[in-house]
Amino acid sequence: MKLNKHVETILGCDKKYDEADIVVFGAPFDSTTSFRPGARFAPGKMRTESPYAMESYSPYLDLDLEDDASVFDGGDLKVSFGDTQKTLGIIKDYTKNILDDGKVPLMLGGEHLVTLGAVQAMAEKYPDLNIVHFDAHADLRNEFFGTKYSHATVLRRCHDLVGDGRIFQFGIRSGDKEEMNWARDHVTMYKFDFDALEETLIGLEGKPIYFTVDLDVLDPSIFPGTGTPEAGGVDFNDLRLAMQVVSYLNVVGADMVELSPSCDLGGISTSVALKLLREFLLSLSRARRERC
Amino acid sequence: MKLNKHVETILGCDKKYDEADIVVFGAPFDSTTSFRPGARFAPGKMRTESPYAMESYSPYLDLDLEDDASVFDGGDLKVSFGDTQKTLGIIKDYTKNILDDGKVPLMLGGEHLVTLGAVQAMAEKYPDLNIVHFDAHADLRNEFFGTKYSHATVLRRCHDLVGDGRIFQFGIRSGDKEEMNWARDHVTMYKFDFDALEETLIGLEGKPIYFTVDLDVLDPSIFPGTGTPEAGGVDFNDLRLAMQVVSYLNVVGADMVELSPSCDLGGISTSVALKLLREFLLSLSRARRERC
Amino acid sequence: MKLNKHVETILGCDKKYDEADIVVFGAPFDSTTSFRPGARFAPGKMRTESPYAMESYSPYLDLDLEDDASVFDGGDLKVSFGDTQKTLGIIKDYTKNILDDGKVPLMLGGEHLVTLGAVQAMAEKYPDLNIVHFDAHADLRNEFFGTKYSHATVLRRCHDLVGDGRIFQFGIRSGDKEEMNWARDHVTMYKFDFDALEETLIGLEGKPIYFTVDLDVLDPSIFPGTGTPEAGGVDFNDLRLAMQVVSYLNVVGADMVELSPSCDLGGISTSVALKLLREFLLSLSRARRERC
Amino acid sequence: MKLNKHVETILGCDKKYDEADIVVFGAPFDSTTSFRPGARFAPGKMRTESPYAMESYSPYLDLDLEDDASVFDGGDLKVSFGDTQKTLGIIKDYTKNILDDGKVPLMLGGEHLVTLGAVQAMAEKYPDLNIVHFDAHADLRNEFFGTKYSHATVLRRCHDLVGDGRIFQFGIRSGDKEEMNWARDHVTMYKFDFDALEETLIGLEGKPIYFTVDLDVLDPSIFPGTGTPEAGGVDFNDLRLAMQVVSYLNVVGADMVELSPSCDLGGISTSVALKLLREFLLSLSRARRERC
Amino acid sequence: MKLNKHVETILGCDKKYDEADIVVFGAPFDSTTSFRPGARFAPGKMRTESPYAMESYSPYLDLDLEDDASVFDGGDLKVSFGDTQKTLGIIKDYTKNILDDGKVPLMLGGEHLVTLGAVQAMAEKYPDLNIVHFDAHADLRNEFFGTKYSHATVLRRCHDLVGDGRIFQFGIRSGDKEEMNWARDHVTMYKFDFDALEETLIGLEGKPIYFTVDLDVLDPSIFPGTGTPEAGGVDFNDLRLAMQVVSYLNVVGADMVELSPSCDLGGISTSVALKLLREFLLSLSRARRERC
Amino acid sequence: MKLNKHVETILGCDKKYDEADIVVFGAPFDSTTSFRPGARFAPGKMRTESPYAMESYSPYLDLDLEDDASVFDGGDLKVSFGDTQKTLGIIKDYTKNILDDGKVPLMLGGEHLVTLGAVQAMAEKYPDLNIVHFDAHADLRNEFFGTKYSHATVLRRCHDLVGDGRIFQFGIRSGDKEEMNWARDHVTMYKFDFDALEETLIGLEGKPIYFTVDLDVLDPSIFPGTGTPEAGGVDFNDLRLAMQVVSYLNVVGADMVELSPSCDLGGISTSVALKLLREFLLSLSRARRERC
Repeated sequence: MKLNKHVETILGCDKKYDEADIVVFGAPFDSTTSFRPGARFAPGKMRTESPYAMESYSPYLDLDLEDDASVFDGGDLKVSFGDTQKTLGIIKDYTKNILDDGKVPLMLGGEHLVTLGAVQAMAEKYPDLNIVHFDAHADLRNEFFGTKYSHATVLRRCHDLVGDGRIFQFGIRSGDKEEMNWARDHVTMYKFDFDALEETLIGLEGKPIYFTVDLDVLDPSIFPGTGTPEAGGVDFNDLRLAMQVVSYLNVVGADMVELSPSCDLGGISTSVALKLLREFLLSLSRARRERC
Repeated sequence: MKLNKHVETILGCDKKYDEADIVVFGAPFDSTTSFRPGARFAPGKMRTESPYAMESYSPYLDLDLEDDASVFDGGDLKVSFGDTQKTLGIIKDYTKNILDDGKVPLMLGGEHLVTLGAVQAMAEKYPDLNIVHFDAHADLRNEFFGTKYSHATVLRRCHDLVGDGRIFQFGIRSGDKEEMNWARDHVTMYKFDFDALEETLIGLEGKPIYFTVDLDVLDPSIFPGTGTPEAGGVDFNDLRLAMQVVSYLNVVGADMVELSPSCDLGGISTSVALKLLREFLLSLSRARRERC
Repeated sequence: MKLNKHVETILGCDKKYDEADIVVFGAPFDSTTSFRPGARFAPGKMRTESPYAMESYSPYLDLDLEDDASVFDGGDLKVSFGDTQKTLGIIKDYTKNILDDGKVPLMLGGEHLVTLGAVQAMAEKYPDLNIVHFDAHADLRNEFFGTKYSHATVLRRCHDLVGDGRIFQFGIRSGDKEEMNWARDHVTMYKFDFDALEETLIGLEGKPIYFTVDLDVLDPSIFPGTGTPEAGGVDFNDLRLAMQVVSYLNVVGADMVELSPSCDLGGISTSVALKLLREFLLSLSRARRERC
Repeated sequence: MKLNKHVETILGCDKKYDEADIVVFGAPFDSTTSFRPGARFAPGKMRTESPYAMESYSPYLDLDLEDDASVFDGGDLKVSFGDTQKTLGIIKDYTKNILDDGKVPLMLGGEHLVTLGAVQAMAEKYPDLNIVHFDAHADLRNEFFGTKYSHATVLRRCHDLVGDGRIFQFGIRSGDKEEMNWARDHVTMYKFDFDALEETLIGLEGKPIYFTVDLDVLDPSIFPGTGTPEAGGVDFNDLRLAMQVVSYLNVVGADMVELSPSCDLGGISTSVALKLLREFLLSLSRARRERC
Repeated sequence: MKLNKHVETILGCDKKYDEADIVVFGAPFDSTTSFRPGARFAPGKMRTESPYAMESYSPYLDLDLEDDASVFDGGDLKVSFGDTQKTLGIIKDYTKNILDDGKVPLMLGGEHLVTLGAVQAMAEKYPDLNIVHFDAHADLRNEFFGTKYSHATVLRRCHDLVGDGRIFQFGIRSGDKEEMNWARDHVTMYKFDFDALEETLIGLEGKPIYFTVDLDVLDPSIFPGTGTPEAGGVDFNDLRLAMQVVSYLNVVGADMVELSPSCDLGGISTSVALKLLREFLLSLSRARRERC
Repeated sequence: MKLNKHVETILGCDKKYDEADIVVFGAPFDSTTSFRPGARFAPGKMRTESPYAMESYSPYLDLDLEDDASVFDGGDLKVSFGDTQKTLGIIKDYTKNILDDGKVPLMLGGEHLVTLGAVQAMAEKYPDLNIVHFDAHADLRNEFFGTKYSHATVLRRCHDLVGDGRIFQFGIRSGDKEEMNWARDHVTMYKFDFDALEETLIGLEGKPIYFTVDLDVLDPSIFPGTGTPEAGGVDFNDLRLAMQVVSYLNVVGADMVELSPSCDLGGISTSVALKLLREFLLSLSRARRERC
């Protein structure tokens, strides 16, 4: 009897590529992290723990990843530690490939800079791209520790691509004075919570949306496993529901970044990330079905 | 001057056996745990830490374990790692002994399967036994990882003993689709919270109740020290008050399970478990006094 | 080109001594800690992590430590491990020096007993000193583990200096029966939360206030990094706002104690402490400006 | 461009099944572990870390897993936590399948009891099987914690299958008095080191050998990541060379057990295990080539 | 059937007080520790782990604690954290009680200062007391961090009691220049190893010996669990054999100090300490029997 | 009394810049680390722990950093995370400044790539520079993870600067086949140990030497705190003595790299690094004095 090799995917993300609507993949890069690195280990850890740390069935949505979504997991990209531009190019190319096949890319970071690689591909395909951004940090600096390409500048670099009025930020509770001032003229920023979310998103209906979720928008009590925890964040159900709201937009690409297993000593943050991923995959799939 | 050996009990649980109303004991078994083991260390850790991690006095109830309860701590059972049936038998026998002496057993797990050993003894003594179950997980599968005796099947096995309509579940937020469907016809399940608790319990007044608390019903932020943390749980005061509500029923046996010190790196979960134990012992004792 | 030595201060606390209004310093002592020691490492850890774990700008107050406060960081005192009286003397002398220069001392513990050294200096200078005390524990025992000088007796010793009716406690949720009884006649204690804070403080306007914050008043979910975590505490925004309220009083000295980096495995508690420090320094500075 | 799923094997163990001489697989079971569990995570952790924690090239042997060995990695078996007999059956069946295909099974534990499942298959195929056993513990008890099937009884159960004079133990430095006495009459035991290894093995030339390596034979300084560390063990080069000596025998099956990643906080034990595996795979392959 | 409370002793140290030759007890004090505290948890941890982390049988000596020694474990003293003199008094009184009953005290620290309490009692009873001292650190300062009573001054304080030429140090590899100079005139110090041990001890035959073992004499690779690890130490077998050599002297009291479970994340140091304790108890008992 | 800010230097490295012979500084960069990052925290951690984890006096050399060496500690460079070239430029400029002032730079990594920045400055000043390299890894690849600038290529890049026959490697025990083959023609490599050290160094007398010590040359048992631990390394005294041998050459610059506090959970590796630094600073200073 011939034995088989071990194929590892996130639980419930094991559809064939050709049949999948959504493609999950990992971008395990954290070279620009200024404080505690470790986000590189996130997608691998999520894949390994998913059979134990989550069910494919959601009691919130009464939907199941096995039956109600069609997701392919492409594994992790081979990024180049210490070579930011090469890494962004690898992410851009892989994202473009998924877009060309008519599927939705859902990237798992890594640090937040990986978003730029994906947005480079998205903005080429969707010139009218808007970005919805959940985060504790504004990430709007022009330069950080001497470089323009950093987790702390990533939304500023995205702004270089999409321009004024296209970035909508929620949950922000940290930044320096300068970037907060710059934000007033160039992006739409809501601090601390999601209170303004539904009202804001009305104006985005139908437009192509890239949705980037920096998981440190969560309070460190529920999500300690991140490199730069910021007290005073939202809780799990806040974020779960806010992501569900966004899923009803025309989301053409998304990411979840900044889980750092190295900072998640007890493992609870990995399980939080996995459940948010399950809920988002299910609600996005349902929304896409309903639109058809 | 003759010196004495070191007797170790949970703080305030040092009454003589003959005088005690309630008997605390540990069932340090976790062989069926599928993800992160370590619950075996819970009762020992609670015993060791109790003099430092809690006071015997409750500022919530203005009662004191030294004066207002009469609890004996029997130490830990000698379970058989890897031999599930033998271990269940040991638990059943010990529980039966306590029941025969007219006392209330309060077992500290260990993983959730230990509940079955206690319920085997309880159901023999109380044919009309009802079970109140707080948990993040339904634990209603018929089989798990190839065995019918598992932490994930334990309430299903209890159902084999007590039958339809006798199990009342609260706080459930994880399960597979099949067990959720099965639950509709056989048990009473309330998802996510305790909103329906008081109303539900009215119907249970006077009936013999076994009360099993899987501590992972708590949110992982307040209780990270458990093998399978589930985001979106209740908080400390929610659970403290819900346990107080149950204490007014005719509780003839109880357990607290699934604290895993191996997952509780900072030690906060052990102290949470100890305080919930103190509060429950005090409110149960008060309720029993008031009934007399 | 001559190179410079490394001067380390808490971020934004780098004004010259002569120009500073507020003097931050560390009292890295934890010899009387009865459970998990490690608070000795707190001020050093806060200093090292501050450039990474916080911004100098507050999005809550729209103020910046660089521009809107004038704080000197004096480093850590050389305390004497195991010699409580000598250590208290060192703290008292250093505090007195700051007071003599017309500045506000803000001490970073260390365990809670260090408060006594500061209060000894404060009470000499301000005979009508009142103490506002945030804590999970009453700290009012007369003796603990055989000594009258302990983290668990510190407010009792402060009472020896300031007398009845001068101590106002908030957030208390742990103590033994005796100290709770004693409290009724000698101090003003509000349990569990800050609901009564604003009303209570009205009576303290204009009086010299020493403000001591035991960070374990926070819930262990948001602040696991402390030696004796107590479930059921306040959250970050509760405490941040309550400290802001106190900053409007005539605060002539303050401390933040009981961060224990040894218990803060993931590092989130250090960042919580830093942010509370920033917010308090900014609101205290603003309040002092407004009074002038 | 069609994307591919992620196949995960131990580095250099990615040959096709049909072409492979040696089949590595994981038996992630640790239900009978009496002290610190966690060995279940070993084969998965080894697989995940192998691309980073080791090279395929050995500077000791000047051989490379890519070129000089032909190894297939079958992933992990789906064991049944808490059901020892079912798990042993799964291991036996999988081992038998490999033997039937004329390949050498190399099992990665898991706890030491998994050896019994493999030996059950081996002893059926090779009635004259001999066992070479490296371990800190004798593992010769007849019963342990009330069960006859335990990590502490596993070699006794193997003796039930192969009989007197067929088990050769090295490195033993822990046991109870009874098993040590029993050993004198039934097995060949060398305590503490490998001094007698080469001389002893001369008598085993040509005979079919099952080789079981409990990694706790290593000193805890170099191998802390195991559930029951025993001071006074051999060092890395001792074990590496001793395993090389055994590889020249007619090894028809082998295992490496008792790595526990849960106890290997810094990760050094996983890398030690991987390097020993590489060295053994290479020297075994070379020995097999040389015999042909 | 009446149930029993849980008596906890170190494995094999459960003889009745009246029958015991040797009395083990814990002195869980570490208030003067200047770097990483945690030694206070050592005796409790040793007690809890002993049934799992060691056997009562020694394969080195072919002796068993159950049969070949008679040891009583008195549990832990109630020390006074932060009050050094009170704590030393408690230790002295307890030690004196044991001496008065004709038994040998074997104290488990705690930090090294606890030795002073025991030596105070010993020196009163045995005016010609000699001290054999194994340690990485000289511990001969006259003052440390402003106090004369510290882990770093303890042997100097013992010298105050026993005088010149009575202290014999082995394994020393750290100290400041001043104490090293002082040592030349007042004690016998051998650096780095035990090479001079046997020769030196010949001169001590028959004299009453207090034997103090600071476990940090071990290399940090085998004993990381200590507050001030010093590279370049002896290994397990070196220390085991050296302690055996000392056991042949007239040892009238002994201690093992400076295990710090807080620094022993993987738990190997606790097991090393337990095995050294077992070996020393057995060889000391054998030597005493042989002398009779 | 005016208070002073906190100046933090490594213990005993607090001489004035103008008077110092040797300049220690930190290069806290680890962006190209492919496995476990964290080396960025090394120099800061060494500075913070040095007053507690080491003495200024060496019992090996009977010399004291306070009296027998003249070392300035310049703190940490502000490196650019994720921008390798910018970081190398910062290191080169700082090193050049030290060389221009006639002092010896001693850089503390960070990952091994930082060596390249220093060697760029050294090779410009000393065209006949030779490099002595202690390491577990050859670090001679031409490319790694898609970049030519990596910790795994650093000695190859140094070879680009100094050419054939100028690099002398010791302790190497890991590499891929290709780099091992390349090494034969271009560098002098001794595997596993320092046996050939003294003989080899005879030929280097008088020549300008850059000495780079990757601390993972140590066995992981004594030095677990590094990103890529390799079993089978040298022990503390081996390395201490080998570094002493090199100190007698004309060492014009040096570094110690790859301590990763994130991997050094118990802290023993930081103390090992500090002691090796002390020993090397003292023996280098003595050798320089003796040459004058």
